[in-house]
Amino acid sequence: MLFHFARSAAAPKPTEIRRKPLAPAECPALTSRHSSYPEPFKSRMGDREKRRLGDPFGLTQFGVNLVRLAQGAQSALRHWHTQEDEFVYVLEGRIALVTDAGEVEIAAGQCIGYPGGDKNAHHFVNRGGETAVYLEVGSRLAGDNAFYPDDDLMWVETETGTKPAHKDGRFYE
Amino acid sequence: MLFHFARSAAAPKPTEIRRKPLAPAECPALTSRHSSYPEPFKSRMGDREKRRLGDPFGLTQFGVNLVRLAQGAQSALRHWHTQEDEFVYVLEGRIALVTDAGEVEIAAGQCIGYPGGDKNAHHFVNRGGETAVYLEVGSRLAGDNAFYPDDDLMWVETETGTKPAHKDGRFYE
Repeated sequence: MLFHFARSAAAPKPTEIRRKPLAPAECPALTSRHSSYPEPFKSRMGDREKRRLGDPFGLTQFGVNLVRLAQGAQSALRHWHTQEDEFVYVLEGRIALVTDAGEVEIAAGQCIGYPGGDKNAHHFVNRGGETAVYLEVGSRLAGDNAFYPDDDLMWVETETGTKPAHKDGRFYE
Repeated sequence: MLFHFARSAAAPKPTEIRRKPLAPAECPALTSRHSSYPEPFKSRMGDREKRRLGDPFGLTQFGVNLVRLAQGAQSALRHWHTQEDEFVYVLEGRIALVTDAGEVEIAAGQCIGYPGGDKNAHHFVNRGGETAVYLEVGSRLAGDNAFYPDDDLMWVETETGTKPAHKDGRFYE
């Protein structure tokens, strides 16, 4: 899941728009501890770091993350989005791309995209020894949802916000 | 101008959605001869090549281009968009980023973004000897327009499509 639908509606423009180039190291690194998944899913993300590159410039229509996946880490649970288009361009290393069709390798200089509403669930897993680095882009659309064919997780919209639930409807604590 | 507004409304999803990774060399290269600018602006783009990476996957909400700028080439006329958010990540080389605030250099591993509606006009010019390569991302929004503070160009919506015009309203031939 690239940008969780509960946070995916366009944010208000920041009062300060950065007007000079940014090196990703200047952005705070969000680790997999920031995942919105409940356990046991959050821990499965492993050594994953994301830096949000678009936000400092005041971009709200799509998000851009620079992602580092260490050995064993994964991008997300395998999922598909009801509305959000996603795009990934690999900058360093090699990653296993797992979809409904099985597993293929995607390497530095290659890209992949997933149109919103297409039910071909997908994620990346770093099965090698080297850290992989990629850029991910996703539209920010109010009302987007994500589904997980392999896992007992869904998102439920409630009066007090979106909550993670088992597929029988019971909320995670 | 990243994605010209006349073509920026979401396109219909293609019947064939690519489901395997893509190397940019597999995409057709569009040269500056494909620019929608009238002359003398089109020729000013120089040796510029773009490959549309998102389209083969059926993405419609934003476009992603891999762009190569040879020495002397430029990304676009200096412009700002009324609605479209834009983002650029430099993969190779160095480019001059020219905005209302003047000129700074942006190098491989750095990024920049421009929120839609912000009137800080911008473009890239390759003033060095080496080819520069970058990824550009732009939202596709119907009704987006672009303005050019340095040049005698504007876009006019007519019954038969969007046309380039001088700033006194006369159409370019």
